[in-house]
Amino acid sequence: MNQDKKIVIIGCGAGGGTAAQFARKTDRKASITVFEKGQYPQYSKCGLPYVISGRIPEFKDLIEFSEEWFKKSNIDLLMETTVEQIDVKKQVIVAKKGKEIIEKPYSSLIIATGAKPSILPIKNIYKNGILVDGVNVVRTIEDGEKINSFVKSKKNITIIGAGLIGLEMADNFHKKDMNVTVVEVLPSILASILDEDMSSQICKTVSKNISLFTNHLATKIESKNGKICSVFIKNGETGEDIKIETDLLIIAVGCKPDSTLAKNAKCKIGKNGHIIVNEKTETSFKNIYSVGDCTEYKDFVTKKPLPIGLGSIVLRQAIAAGVNSAGGNYKLPDGVLQTCTSDIFGLEIASVGPSVNFIEDTSIVSGKFNGFSLPEYFPGGKSITVKVFVDCQTGRILAAQAVGNSAAQRINTFACAILGGMNVETFRRLETAYAPSIAPTLDVITLVCDIVSMKMNRKRR
Amino acid sequence: MNQDKKIVIIGCGAGGGTAAQFARKTDRKASITVFEKGQYPQYSKCGLPYVISGRIPEFKDLIEFSEEWFKKSNIDLLMETTVEQIDVKKQVIVAKKGKEIIEKPYSSLIIATGAKPSILPIKNIYKNGILVDGVNVVRTIEDGEKINSFVKSKKNITIIGAGLIGLEMADNFHKKDMNVTVVEVLPSILASILDEDMSSQICKTVSKNISLFTNHLATKIESKNGKICSVFIKNGETGEDIKIETDLLIIAVGCKPDSTLAKNAKCKIGKNGHIIVNEKTETSFKNIYSVGDCTEYKDFVTKKPLPIGLGSIVLRQAIAAGVNSAGGNYKLPDGVLQTCTSDIFGLEIASVGPSVNFIEDTSIVSGKFNGFSLPEYFPGGKSITVKVFVDCQTGRILAAQAVGNSAAQRINTFACAILGGMNVETFRRLETAYAPSIAPTLDVITLVCDIVSMKMNRKRR
Repeated sequence: MNQDKKIVIIGCGAGGGTAAQFARKTDRKASITVFEKGQYPQYSKCGLPYVISGRIPEFKDLIEFSEEWFKKSNIDLLMETTVEQIDVKKQVIVAKKGKEIIEKPYSSLIIATGAKPSILPIKNIYKNGILVDGVNVVRTIEDGEKINSFVKSKKNITIIGAGLIGLEMADNFHKKDMNVTVVEVLPSILASILDEDMSSQICKTVSKNISLFTNHLATKIESKNGKICSVFIKNGETGEDIKIETDLLIIAVGCKPDSTLAKNAKCKIGKNGHIIVNEKTETSFKNIYSVGDCTEYKDFVTKKPLPIGLGSIVLRQAIAAGVNSAGGNYKLPDGVLQTCTSDIFGLEIASVGPSVNFIEDTSIVSGKFNGFSLPEYFPGGKSITVKVFVDCQTGRILAAQAVGNSAAQRINTFACAILGGMNVETFRRLETAYAPSIAPTLDVITLVCDIVSMKMNRKRR
Repeated sequence: MNQDKKIVIIGCGAGGGTAAQFARKTDRKASITVFEKGQYPQYSKCGLPYVISGRIPEFKDLIEFSEEWFKKSNIDLLMETTVEQIDVKKQVIVAKKGKEIIEKPYSSLIIATGAKPSILPIKNIYKNGILVDGVNVVRTIEDGEKINSFVKSKKNITIIGAGLIGLEMADNFHKKDMNVTVVEVLPSILASILDEDMSSQICKTVSKNISLFTNHLATKIESKNGKICSVFIKNGETGEDIKIETDLLIIAVGCKPDSTLAKNAKCKIGKNGHIIVNEKTETSFKNIYSVGDCTEYKDFVTKKPLPIGLGSIVLRQAIAAGVNSAGGNYKLPDGVLQTCTSDIFGLEIASVGPSVNFIEDTSIVSGKFNGFSLPEYFPGGKSITVKVFVDCQTGRILAAQAVGNSAAQRINTFACAILGGMNVETFRRLETAYAPSIAPTLDVITLVCDIVSMKMNRKRR
């Protein structure tokens, strides 16, 4: 029976690789084949910025599971092999390695094709259809290696996009003593995960270290001897143009799903080109699963479609896909929480839940509290600001944001509350751990809920 | 109307002081009187060990709310005034300040009389009814001041009791370069909050720094010129006696409730002498509340009676008592979670839920996981071990223990899950915050639940 189970996985990133791993855990005998078009097996894309700064010594340190590991696990991993077609009727995929054509039948298929970095329509950015020398994206080890060849003290680097990746890159380039400029078209930074009142603290810290232009659009570049030498950016309010000397330009403005194979196979695709999957990571075909940045699931709170873009979610999808493709039954929660974190110039940030345009909904009450990680009388307490969003009708906690000490762990507690549908009145009575050298008797996470509770009561009157 | 509201509070520790504060917040006009027999207003008892090591400069830094603060808040605070009787029929308390007798009528009364340190029956420990010079307890600033006069480099100190306070004291004396010995009668340390397999890690760390004798009972002391000079301890297995040179002996073996006033007033008292209170902190008399170490409420998980002994719980009771005594309506959760934490010789520990003799219940499954605070490829990851207890029938998470990095914040997330009655199958799908420099894609808190889940499934088969 098991010998007939043929699991084929397209892509060996965090999604595909982890799926293979969990398929193997679920079924010790099934045939498992992974196709990877690149030259590296499963590695951490999120770690790329830290190799650039040298905090992680080498790009190969990012490899989480080696080719040998897959071999030992009895998983066939075909590197530098590109899948070109999924034949849904025959249940076969067609791949190409060099000139060799490979046909591989499947009983379960997992599409983990990921995403490609978006490129903005900046004038002169392409030459003969490829990016001008010195213009880069950050997605793969290959990208990282190219970037690293430009990293030199005092060189000028401009980053387009003040999201997590753009700012993490900025932080790491700054650590290499480069002159860093970040350009963001929106009026605030990290806009997809933090409200402006929360991100303004980070803005201050960032601006102390590097040049930050919010509300500016990159319009064109200039090159010299085939290499970039400057970027022009336009002030969104005044229309004024600024020229920035640039030896290296990084474009970090998000990415678009790589869903062509799935589309051609007639998998249901969302309006932004993502493969639509359910809580079992099934596509519109029962035996075809998909995971990772090429997919769209839903937000846990709003239940609205949501493109997947966080490594933590990809991994959880991959566990589900791996288990399910091998005959198990693993269901994800009814949507993703979007729990995320980062550390930007030494400031820890984290958030959970949908945050964009949230306060526009009048039935939502938010509260903010700035406190300390330790009791007032204990030296060394660090600042921590938490903002919480609650549905005024039901009292349910919907989202939270934090900036400062242990922001990520504090946000995890809110994530648990959101997942459990917890009411803010219950949460604010949560007995948090207290010791003078560790945390205050009342932690910021409950104090902020006292504020929300008061606001709710006032609103209800 | 409000002028008739007379709130009287006995005791100005964390419980009484906080209750006064919240009574005032709830009713701006009520008369509020606090009686405190000691000479310091509300201060942090938990901070005492840290003044001894000098991490907190002075004992007065522990004072959280000064006499001036109470005055400004229009709260009458009578220092060094001892309440001697509660007349429930007349609704009056009788107090004594020096020779002056004070009678104070109340409409609501809050008893926050706290607890007294337990003293073991160690031979020769008393002289003329008082502790021999050099034998001390750690409960008040006065105790701390007395202890501090003995603190000198290379002096010998012996601490009886390896609970949180005993070990925190040991850590802080060690920082002052004293020769520290800790004696514990039980076979393991921190037995009330950690299982032996969890505390054994701490044992190792502790033993590297100081002398630790578990399974040893202190039997007698010897004095010289009216001062302690040595302690004898007996091995619980072999019966062997050991003599330990001792300049200062600290007894940190818990405490007993100070409930005499309440008992005499016929408040319902639990079998260990605690005042029994409900979720509103009401005693058996509707208008008499009680909070803090003199009270007994119940455990959230077992619903069994539980003496209150943690500052964090006292504070939450005090909020309830303050609000309710002033006419509000504040209910605590249906039991206490016992969330607690400490930092012992640099090792952070935390726990939540009932832990003692827990695994003896066969319907409970536990799992343990030792992981790291960062992804494997990221340098600087710190060890963290988490143990979780789940009800096998219902899947509900009942308790958790952690040792290592951010143990307290991680335990807070479990506290939230326990408070919400969350199933381990839900919790293990919790999307935790991930970033290479902050936390791994799958945090120890969910990985440990995977182990419990597997064990449960095996057990159910």
